[in-house]
Amino acid sequence: MRMYDVILKKRNGGTLTDEEIREAVQGYTRGEIPDYQMSALLMAVYFQGMTDHETAVLTDAMAHSGDMMDLSEIPGIKVDKHSTGGVGDKTTLIVGPIAAACGCHVAKMSGRGLGHTGGTVDKMESIPGMRTELTREEFIRTAKEAGITVTGQSGNLTPADKKLYALRDVTATVESIPLIASSIMSKKLAAGSDCILLDVKTGSGAFMKTVEDSVCLAQKMVAIGMHNGRKTAALITNMDIPLGNQIGNALEVEEAVRVLRGEGPADLTGVCLALASEMLYLAGKGSREECRRLAQEAVDSGAALQRLAAMVRCQGGDEECIFHPEKLGRAPLEAEVKAPADGSISKMDTEGIGLAAMMLGAGRETKESRLDYLAGIILKKKTGDAVRAGEVIAELRASEESRFAGAGARFLEALTLSDEKPDPEQLVYARVTEEGVEYLEKG
Amino acid sequence: MRMYDVILKKRNGGTLTDEEIREAVQGYTRGEIPDYQMSALLMAVYFQGMTDHETAVLTDAMAHSGDMMDLSEIPGIKVDKHSTGGVGDKTTLIVGPIAAACGCHVAKMSGRGLGHTGGTVDKMESIPGMRTELTREEFIRTAKEAGITVTGQSGNLTPADKKLYALRDVTATVESIPLIASSIMSKKLAAGSDCILLDVKTGSGAFMKTVEDSVCLAQKMVAIGMHNGRKTAALITNMDIPLGNQIGNALEVEEAVRVLRGEGPADLTGVCLALASEMLYLAGKGSREECRRLAQEAVDSGAALQRLAAMVRCQGGDEECIFHPEKLGRAPLEAEVKAPADGSISKMDTEGIGLAAMMLGAGRETKESRLDYLAGIILKKKTGDAVRAGEVIAELRASEESRFAGAGARFLEALTLSDEKPDPEQLVYARVTEEGVEYLEKG
Repeated sequence: MRMYDVILKKRNGGTLTDEEIREAVQGYTRGEIPDYQMSALLMAVYFQGMTDHETAVLTDAMAHSGDMMDLSEIPGIKVDKHSTGGVGDKTTLIVGPIAAACGCHVAKMSGRGLGHTGGTVDKMESIPGMRTELTREEFIRTAKEAGITVTGQSGNLTPADKKLYALRDVTATVESIPLIASSIMSKKLAAGSDCILLDVKTGSGAFMKTVEDSVCLAQKMVAIGMHNGRKTAALITNMDIPLGNQIGNALEVEEAVRVLRGEGPADLTGVCLALASEMLYLAGKGSREECRRLAQEAVDSGAALQRLAAMVRCQGGDEECIFHPEKLGRAPLEAEVKAPADGSISKMDTEGIGLAAMMLGAGRETKESRLDYLAGIILKKKTGDAVRAGEVIAELRASEESRFAGAGARFLEALTLSDEKPDPEQLVYARVTEEGVEYLEKG
Repeated sequence: MRMYDVILKKRNGGTLTDEEIREAVQGYTRGEIPDYQMSALLMAVYFQGMTDHETAVLTDAMAHSGDMMDLSEIPGIKVDKHSTGGVGDKTTLIVGPIAAACGCHVAKMSGRGLGHTGGTVDKMESIPGMRTELTREEFIRTAKEAGITVTGQSGNLTPADKKLYALRDVTATVESIPLIASSIMSKKLAAGSDCILLDVKTGSGAFMKTVEDSVCLAQKMVAIGMHNGRKTAALITNMDIPLGNQIGNALEVEEAVRVLRGEGPADLTGVCLALASEMLYLAGKGSREECRRLAQEAVDSGAALQRLAAMVRCQGGDEECIFHPEKLGRAPLEAEVKAPADGSISKMDTEGIGLAAMMLGAGRETKESRLDYLAGIILKKKTGDAVRAGEVIAELRASEESRFAGAGARFLEALTLSDEKPDPEQLVYARVTEEGVEYLEKG
């Protein structure tokens, strides 16, 4: 194989052979293929795409470029969940414990936040004592004991993805569906679970802006998972509005706890129950209806909350923070954002709201930024709500007075007020499985 | 300017600003922009193209990346001619002397051959003593004295093009019309002539396989030249058949002399008179009809041949080889290729014939290959000619017996014999000027 021929073939719209893909990934990871040839190939893929088969082989080659996690010591079905990232997305801390309470095992790697999106590892670290860099033994032990564990990426997992992603990031080749799908799925394959549920976020706060694009990405990822022997499905969920009412690390842990107590906001609760029951369904726990009932019972009985507390305890965190989340602490400073006029909130630019939270200290502007775990936003009004001039729309929290001016302005800029009341937002747009796409009804 | 934004903009089909293009070229030439970003941009350009304005700015930036030749010491109008490369293309050695005989000055840089195509510098070096690496002083002096001089590229001309071309060559981004046009024209602009005639070869032996693509490339190049203040035009000429009957370095010098004596083959003579009169027209020597007459007279009077001899003399070569080309020598070995059956030659794969000549020693397989100046092919039959089984189609010349078997087979493979006699080949398909495209009649 000559890399030149591979670039030329893809540039001309050809289909690469399994061998060509594997040698390109391996050669690149070993440093034998230079960056400039790989970036040309990536740009050609951006324009010409990849077949499902090519994408599956690419993903498998990336997954096998480093260690493959062996979860066989953990009994039963191992279920993973991946969200493509959004604002206020604390679903892992809710659906993981629900799935664990229903007899699944969730042994998950997660990342940190950057820009307007948060990361589960950061949220977990807002709990005093909580460790997120587990050894392999700790990871397995926590999964066995609590039924759920979440760790930062460790070991030499998918080095090909790391190298490719870094290159895509500086060559404007990130936004390619086969490349996004293979990047996500290579990590999921290497992470070793039997079942993979994908939560593909759609809308102003998500990477994918339209349901159509999200379905397309989901289909690619489901095809990759199934091709590689994993039971895989996806839900396309709404990110045109922040998920829940609280954005910021400790604030999100608190809200997750509230959902697990049955006291959470309707939108977040609804999305989490949909995701959790889909995970249970993938794991073969019964019909979709039965799985839905099991998930609801895990919340109602308090079993899911116990699982979350168990994970926190096993990972060195203070489990009292789960039973009494006020112990997480509260930012020293608060400011209110008030409605500038009467009207209804007809739209929220969710990315803008995520950026406002970042400006308060809840997120990272660059990889080096330090987080303020207590900073964030509590939404008092969301899309569809009527407001009167001067009424409080949101409460901002931070540790420095200087953070409020910019963040408040950024937040207001993200809102659209209008005379007409918009239709209520749909939570879950579609379900993508091996069988195809099922578009769901509102509510 | 961030290179990332430039790549993204072009990837999304945007038009780059002058500043973005100039900074990308300058930054890349200085080594500040890495290869992997430039190759991603080149691939994006491959897919999204460039406007005429973008291409003109790119070319100007490339031209100014190194030295710009100053030909002001040479009196009168300086006319350059560029051929996109073909098989048996010895036109420079014919049209240059004709233009010089008609009062123009041709001070030209030329290249070496690679693969199936030849280079004027190689052909010139088949003349004993001939020097092709001239100093600036020698170059100017020869241009003044002989009216024509041809040298290999010297000095620090268009380093941006050298670096970009090397990158394109390994990233499958050569075949892009704006990139080809800017590469050729940057060298022409830097070479300093007032008028530029482009000979865009079309067909099986050329880079451009269709008249349509050739016209497109020619239009881009003419637009670039005019935009940068040079009188520029192009002829689209036939390379579906080797030009003339002789392929190989000394063999082509000999054939060029024959044309300048008025004894050359009709196709080569026709194309050369068309090119020469277009050069004279660009230089303002009269109407197209008058220029045609001037060119013919330069041949008939022997004035053009005198100019060729003068150039050879000024550059240290043996001018007797021009007046008595048999002095160039003759390869020690010969072999004949005979028709395998009765029929007419309906097609010649000109690239294949060029490769056969290369295999005989007349061309380079790699940049390091050594040339045999006396090796080559003399065609006895060409497309349209009837042949009888056993009749000699071509004479091969080489210095080693071992060269004949492969070259002979390659040559025969390049011929298509059929029962029907094809239409005669058209020599010049179209003329592209500032005013537009003029498709020409046959003959």
